[in-house]
Amino acid sequence: MNSFGQIFRLTSFGESHGEAIGGVIDGCPAGLHIDLSFIQEQLDRRKPGQSKITTPRKEDDKVEFLSGIFNDITEGTPIGFIIRNTNQNPGDYDTLKDVFRPSHADYTYATKYGNRDYRGGGRSSARETVARVVAGSVAKLFLKENNIEVKAFVSRVGNVELKKNYKELDLNLTDSNMVRCPDPDIAQKMIDAIIAAHYASDTLGGIIQCVITGVPVGLGGPVYNKLHADLGRSMLSINAVKGFEYGTGFEGTRHTGYEQNDVFVKTDSGIRTKTNNSGGIQGGISNGEDIYFNVGFKPIATLLREQNTVNTKGEEIVIHPEGRHDACVLPRAVPIVESMAAMVIADHLLMKRLDKI
Amino acid sequence: MNSFGQIFRLTSFGESHGEAIGGVIDGCPAGLHIDLSFIQEQLDRRKPGQSKITTPRKEDDKVEFLSGIFNDITEGTPIGFIIRNTNQNPGDYDTLKDVFRPSHADYTYATKYGNRDYRGGGRSSARETVARVVAGSVAKLFLKENNIEVKAFVSRVGNVELKKNYKELDLNLTDSNMVRCPDPDIAQKMIDAIIAAHYASDTLGGIIQCVITGVPVGLGGPVYNKLHADLGRSMLSINAVKGFEYGTGFEGTRHTGYEQNDVFVKTDSGIRTKTNNSGGIQGGISNGEDIYFNVGFKPIATLLREQNTVNTKGEEIVIHPEGRHDACVLPRAVPIVESMAAMVIADHLLMKRLDKI
Amino acid sequence: MNSFGQIFRLTSFGESHGEAIGGVIDGCPAGLHIDLSFIQEQLDRRKPGQSKITTPRKEDDKVEFLSGIFNDITEGTPIGFIIRNTNQNPGDYDTLKDVFRPSHADYTYATKYGNRDYRGGGRSSARETVARVVAGSVAKLFLKENNIEVKAFVSRVGNVELKKNYKELDLNLTDSNMVRCPDPDIAQKMIDAIIAAHYASDTLGGIIQCVITGVPVGLGGPVYNKLHADLGRSMLSINAVKGFEYGTGFEGTRHTGYEQNDVFVKTDSGIRTKTNNSGGIQGGISNGEDIYFNVGFKPIATLLREQNTVNTKGEEIVIHPEGRHDACVLPRAVPIVESMAAMVIADHLLMKRLDKI
Amino acid sequence: MNSFGQIFRLTSFGESHGEAIGGVIDGCPAGLHIDLSFIQEQLDRRKPGQSKITTPRKEDDKVEFLSGIFNDITEGTPIGFIIRNTNQNPGDYDTLKDVFRPSHADYTYATKYGNRDYRGGGRSSARETVARVVAGSVAKLFLKENNIEVKAFVSRVGNVELKKNYKELDLNLTDSNMVRCPDPDIAQKMIDAIIAAHYASDTLGGIIQCVITGVPVGLGGPVYNKLHADLGRSMLSINAVKGFEYGTGFEGTRHTGYEQNDVFVKTDSGIRTKTNNSGGIQGGISNGEDIYFNVGFKPIATLLREQNTVNTKGEEIVIHPEGRHDACVLPRAVPIVESMAAMVIADHLLMKRLDKI
Repeated sequence: MNSFGQIFRLTSFGESHGEAIGGVIDGCPAGLHIDLSFIQEQLDRRKPGQSKITTPRKEDDKVEFLSGIFNDITEGTPIGFIIRNTNQNPGDYDTLKDVFRPSHADYTYATKYGNRDYRGGGRSSARETVARVVAGSVAKLFLKENNIEVKAFVSRVGNVELKKNYKELDLNLTDSNMVRCPDPDIAQKMIDAIIAAHYASDTLGGIIQCVITGVPVGLGGPVYNKLHADLGRSMLSINAVKGFEYGTGFEGTRHTGYEQNDVFVKTDSGIRTKTNNSGGIQGGISNGEDIYFNVGFKPIATLLREQNTVNTKGEEIVIHPEGRHDACVLPRAVPIVESMAAMVIADHLLMKRLDKI
Repeated sequence: MNSFGQIFRLTSFGESHGEAIGGVIDGCPAGLHIDLSFIQEQLDRRKPGQSKITTPRKEDDKVEFLSGIFNDITEGTPIGFIIRNTNQNPGDYDTLKDVFRPSHADYTYATKYGNRDYRGGGRSSARETVARVVAGSVAKLFLKENNIEVKAFVSRVGNVELKKNYKELDLNLTDSNMVRCPDPDIAQKMIDAIIAAHYASDTLGGIIQCVITGVPVGLGGPVYNKLHADLGRSMLSINAVKGFEYGTGFEGTRHTGYEQNDVFVKTDSGIRTKTNNSGGIQGGISNGEDIYFNVGFKPIATLLREQNTVNTKGEEIVIHPEGRHDACVLPRAVPIVESMAAMVIADHLLMKRLDKI
Repeated sequence: MNSFGQIFRLTSFGESHGEAIGGVIDGCPAGLHIDLSFIQEQLDRRKPGQSKITTPRKEDDKVEFLSGIFNDITEGTPIGFIIRNTNQNPGDYDTLKDVFRPSHADYTYATKYGNRDYRGGGRSSARETVARVVAGSVAKLFLKENNIEVKAFVSRVGNVELKKNYKELDLNLTDSNMVRCPDPDIAQKMIDAIIAAHYASDTLGGIIQCVITGVPVGLGGPVYNKLHADLGRSMLSINAVKGFEYGTGFEGTRHTGYEQNDVFVKTDSGIRTKTNNSGGIQGGISNGEDIYFNVGFKPIATLLREQNTVNTKGEEIVIHPEGRHDACVLPRAVPIVESMAAMVIADHLLMKRLDKI
Repeated sequence: MNSFGQIFRLTSFGESHGEAIGGVIDGCPAGLHIDLSFIQEQLDRRKPGQSKITTPRKEDDKVEFLSGIFNDITEGTPIGFIIRNTNQNPGDYDTLKDVFRPSHADYTYATKYGNRDYRGGGRSSARETVARVVAGSVAKLFLKENNIEVKAFVSRVGNVELKKNYKELDLNLTDSNMVRCPDPDIAQKMIDAIIAAHYASDTLGGIIQCVITGVPVGLGGPVYNKLHADLGRSMLSINAVKGFEYGTGFEGTRHTGYEQNDVFVKTDSGIRTKTNNSGGIQGGISNGEDIYFNVGFKPIATLLREQNTVNTKGEEIVIHPEGRHDACVLPRAVPIVESMAAMVIADHLLMKRLDKI
């Protein structure tokens, strides 16, 4: 239940207020050079306290690799790693011990398991995604060897929307601003919106778009493990995600077939499609064009204002959470989206080796 | 790769123009009464030729159960079944033998595997979904024992949209018309749109909404197997699906946290939420409210008109497909959506037995 | 639960007295030529009624392939198949309807599932192994492409034992006699022993040895999926098997380390071992030497004589089974042992493709 | 590949000379009280340096739990843990850097993965079993709640054999001596034999027997996951194991059916068998009688004497290993055998919850 992937497989563990978050990457082939600074860099893109629009909570998020790597090269054995939970401030949570916070997992989780670490979100906390970024970064290194790149960016915050096609953008600019939107003007508007929400003790959601280039033809399966089904599940498993669409997505469902179909053409680089409404995946299998998709995030549920709710005894109460929280999760979620996508592509890239005799 | 589910698990097989489609349902508990007429009824909702807006292709789709059921009761052993492919008209496809049809899986599939049954979509054909309806119907029978109901309906065809909330609708009317929209007026407009598209040699997509009632608190896991992640994957694995959203979905990502949060209230039937923007799932785990989600289908790729494409030699050609095809897949996809949802809920209902000592 | 293998994966279904036994082979690579006559030949080696020392029960065991093969070549899609149960004589079993036969699965199975097909062994019947022989024969064809051969033979029946090392034997003689022992003299003694047991209304067990040649270095994993662990599990999953040992096995546990160790030597064909006490597997991974192992079968539990037992009401009774039964299962189990071994090796041969970047 | 179990599932990581050995226990139900001192006690039974007949190498083997336990009660979330590798003496291994030791995994492992941690056995080292003992001890605590006990003991060392039936022994005496044989006289002879072997620079193998009491009727599946098949695989996955047999095992394959069959009788405690040749498992499913089986261990391959072998360049050389090694692995393997058995039984106990509607 806490494993992700078929061949390239992450099993993660850890609660937000336990000793550590960690994981085991199984199925990473031997011989891959592990660039530790690259992995730490990805963790830094996710960590709290990185800018004025993220929670000021300080977590160093230093990853410690415990196995599977010898002389900086993978050994083909499982890669175990941990990230210690250092900046815990349980006092922040004491008032919430007996409370079911609205739109959090407190109530469902407590009912399901009975024994709940009330000091925080426990296993439901987005803190778990730190393990995904470690494994996703290893996957990115594997993809790099295969000339595949995964790039995500924030394309909408609340109602501030980047309306350009990703092809018109320079995706290398994504990290040039704190909101991770590659268009500087829109980025500034997004930042303003997040700050305004913060001052209103409210939160914002939005959309992250992800683009994967360099994927060869033939990844994915025709039925249950369609490439976009595995990508979709991976995204929907990220905290706060409410929707997934690929290619022209929901908008494309308004098209007629004639408008939507991607015509094949002959090019110097082989068979290609003239348009890419399919988002690089046809019949569940990659067709060599860019893969792109949108991931919708709801606004964060923790509000630093009064809200009605019930406590663990079922009594109606009023809470007023305090503490250090993000007003918008999207900037920090960019590396998480990339990591999940990278793991899915790495997994299918390995499975592709099994297609023919 | 051709299995779906963890505990309640379907493994399917079969190509559109092979001998049969079939499957094995593993993990269905012993003691379940199998109502064969119910299952056949669900297959009839999916079968072609059922109305003037579906392909006139005739397929009887009679399921033959081969194991796992004794005296109409499941034995706890795997339930094997087959549906023979009877109405094959390979002549229809002869002209397509060497052709990669636009936005079909022909090209990706041929590149992936090398040896392709060119008489039709092969394993990529939506004909495979007949196996899903068999297994999904067994799942529905299991859910019925647990007072859980899964009901899907067509909520948009092209731009003809049912704008009401599902709570304002009588979902028992869904099957009262051939397009499977529970609002008779909108249903008629959808039918008109489909017929118009058919005469224009074009096709339409749209949205199916699905509502699941009676789900107890505690289904789903906090991390990778979030209930909506498994639902999303199951939907995205259906042919032609381009997007999935649950609860308020993409629209909800425009809300602020204060607008989006579902406040807990105390009721006679225990803890409930005042609103249900979460779509019955919080932190990946069901909270006892109705689960609802949208599934976006692109228009069917097979157009009965001229289109440019390339052939298997990589040469550019013009095709003009003929034959018997749907102009809109949604009416027939309603039982498929329900079947996949039922399998996911059945699977998690069984997994829930493992939560506590 | 009814699936076997990680990549090359059989999911089987079917009870002895249901409609059919069948299965789905998933993960067989595309491009493999399927020699149907070879597969039928293997089924004939397993089928009842093949000689005077097997049950005279007649079952044709004709396999029908339903998918996954086009123009005699695998398509990379799941291979579905069925074998109809034709020669059922339920009258034979009527008297056993309410009886728990000694050392059969009747009692454990009925307690576990509640609803039991009392007309025979149901899912516990060795009839299920017909599906294994189909899948195992496909695996053998895949191994043949890789110059790997799997050969089993009967090395002991009761106390009649073939004491020679397999290297002294001509394994091509295995099928030259009805007991499948490659030494004609010992074979005759085994046949005599089986006939004597039959006349005494008793049954015999024994040992099947299996030798696999041509396996490259590097199959198997260092920990839980050690090659011999997967082989052992596959053998222990065959009906009536009570033990498994590989290389020098239990006898070798009496040796000292100095006696047991296989010294490496340099040869024209690379690094080899001087002796092969390890049975071709070191640290769970194949080392390029022959793999060999022993499988112990208990005597068949069905005795055509009076025996005390209890009935389904828990009352003590006396039964005297009649009908058509083998007195010794080993001759027919030879292709089953080979099939399971072939599936394990095929599975690991595919997994080996995932070892390195 | 590095996971074990279906529901109760251990994923382990770590090389003998890396930072740590660790693992993730997934699927342990919530609500289980974790007795840390019990777990440490089991680790102490496995650790080196515990007596004069084990290697004097000192490893503290203190387990650190990182997640999944709150207030000493499991939370239903994955239980992550690590054991640091503290007593590394890489100098011991320097001379072995370029050597393929006879009957070790060095050669197969290096060929398989390319990049090998030559400082020790790496992932092939029996040091990995420390993770199994942690997970197995958690499983034992779960079994204890269900009144199931797992007890293993050494029944043969080299040719010194304990010939009594386990029912004649007091298994509480097992840990009263350093060789873990419950018969004090035989124990002394085993100790003498191990010391003699040590002085001869040689090593000994032998047999561990394991007895499981209190298992209810109905654990295990009728086909591939027969209870003894899963037990067998678990044992064969332990380092140095060469064979597995249950019930009367290989000896029983010499019996006739009449001798071997276990007759059912009616007793005050329900249906029982008069004898227990089946070893508590019939048709792959537990029948409520004691489960018992034998596990054969080969002598340790590391000999502190001259041996011929080849180096990594394929050249023939002579080695003379030094260092701190066991002369007989069996005393320390007793808790490992128990741990693997406990995990298998816990897994099947949970799966049993899924049998019926």
